[in-house]
Amino acid sequence: MNIKSYLEEKRLQVEKTLENILPPAEGPLADHFSAMRYSLFAGGKRIRPILAMAAAESLESDPAPYLPLITGLELIHTYALIHDDLPAMDDDELRRGKPTCHKIFGEAAAILAGDGMLSYAFELLSDRDLTAGLPDEDRILIIQTISRAIGPKGMVGGQALDIANEDRKISFETLRFLHSCKTGALIRASVQTGAIIGKAGDDQFHALSEYANRIGLAFQIVDDLLDVEGNPEKLGKSTGADLARRKSTYPAHLGLEETHKLARKTVEDAIDAIKSFDRNAEPLREIARYIYYRDS
Amino acid sequence: MNIKSYLEEKRLQVEKTLENILPPAEGPLADHFSAMRYSLFAGGKRIRPILAMAAAESLESDPAPYLPLITGLELIHTYALIHDDLPAMDDDELRRGKPTCHKIFGEAAAILAGDGMLSYAFELLSDRDLTAGLPDEDRILIIQTISRAIGPKGMVGGQALDIANEDRKISFETLRFLHSCKTGALIRASVQTGAIIGKAGDDQFHALSEYANRIGLAFQIVDDLLDVEGNPEKLGKSTGADLARRKSTYPAHLGLEETHKLARKTVEDAIDAIKSFDRNAEPLREIARYIYYRDS
Repeated sequence: MNIKSYLEEKRLQVEKTLENILPPAEGPLADHFSAMRYSLFAGGKRIRPILAMAAAESLESDPAPYLPLITGLELIHTYALIHDDLPAMDDDELRRGKPTCHKIFGEAAAILAGDGMLSYAFELLSDRDLTAGLPDEDRILIIQTISRAIGPKGMVGGQALDIANEDRKISFETLRFLHSCKTGALIRASVQTGAIIGKAGDDQFHALSEYANRIGLAFQIVDDLLDVEGNPEKLGKSTGADLARRKSTYPAHLGLEETHKLARKTVEDAIDAIKSFDRNAEPLREIARYIYYRDS
Repeated sequence: MNIKSYLEEKRLQVEKTLENILPPAEGPLADHFSAMRYSLFAGGKRIRPILAMAAAESLESDPAPYLPLITGLELIHTYALIHDDLPAMDDDELRRGKPTCHKIFGEAAAILAGDGMLSYAFELLSDRDLTAGLPDEDRILIIQTISRAIGPKGMVGGQALDIANEDRKISFETLRFLHSCKTGALIRASVQTGAIIGKAGDDQFHALSEYANRIGLAFQIVDDLLDVEGNPEKLGKSTGADLARRKSTYPAHLGLEETHKLARKTVEDAIDAIKSFDRNAEPLREIARYIYYRDS
């Protein structure tokens, strides 16, 4: 299979769904909707919803009817980026090569664009008409899985830990815990969302969760590598930021060579976790490889 | 009935539930949990969960088994307060007589405390074990009702509109729309949560929603009045802030006397909306009256 065309096809499905489900920038709340739309349509690989789709497909389930729910994952990811970029947090001016939300709309509007997007994600998740056919029990399980992943013991907790330790050298153990919360939890929840849609059995759910844990880790390691070795133009952001902030990273802890080795090993572990799956899991396997060979 | 002892009894139930369901400030994320706990336990009348309880009771339903879900409403209210108080928003230093979250924990930690609390509310709402016995369909309807109420077309949208118009004179119509989003929507969703728990029929659901719309309005009008006439010590915040910010308020639009008249009329309208309910709705009626006669 050609992973690039697979990713592109799925990405376009996500774009189309987002376009359909987001409120147009009209009416008295037009400015607020504009800020949300600006950040959502500023590019992005849409990897989280694609992972959910690929996970459902690995179980021979068609994710298409559930796209409005699945794209809720992208809203959550975008909300997190908007808040991470804020002056009080990472104070980033560029994201995907474009000015960050608060640079265009101001800080208050950016905080609220993130807040609105998070709530809107739960509107999409809980809308029984928009994604009819999903059993109520599964819908609740998806909402619980996602909300746990992104809450104080997940993504937000990880970001809080990251901010609190910005100028400190942290242990390798703490670094791993931080990443498993900050980036790993939503990636895992994305794969699990697809697993629930695909009616995974216990063993399958466990295998897919293991796969997700490992690609989440690989994703972070490669992010750290790209900050050292990446091409700023392709990345759409400046590199060297982690170093400048004296952030704890994998290359800082392990050196570049060992970090590359770890990234490749983690990708192989991810593929190994779903070795009992048949060829329907090929997209998941290719996504795992792609994470290491991506350049942005 | 004695409304003050009713409110106090319910408030204590909410406090106890919050104490049980919030993560203790321990472990690597202790600081994050501390910031959440600080704002949640900084006082508060807990009026939103109490409204949900009173609405369920008005339908002869016992809300006690659903308290962990119901207190999710208070987490959402507190998240909104933390974000509203931020320097980029209202820049408030005091809330309920205590330093605001960002004054104690810093801006980044306060944004994240709000974010974490919002996600945690959805964890509570979607936890089928914590509030067993609620039919899945009703649980999903509650999640949808709340997420719609607090999202870009509800509470967050209202706050965005408020911030955007801070130094501008807005029409009376826009003011009403703003309030119905910013404060009205969550109050309505609170009453509707109780209505769903109490298995309201269509007419009952409609009546309770009307009641909620009116007390939501009354609440805002009285807030505006308290900012002019209230006792700063009892309120736990300084008064005159709206005037200083040249905010559009009911007194600014109608004058004090007419605003008082409107507040009383709105309370009567709320009581009228549930006139077909029996004595089990007495707490709802008393809460409506209490809104006008409260002093903080």
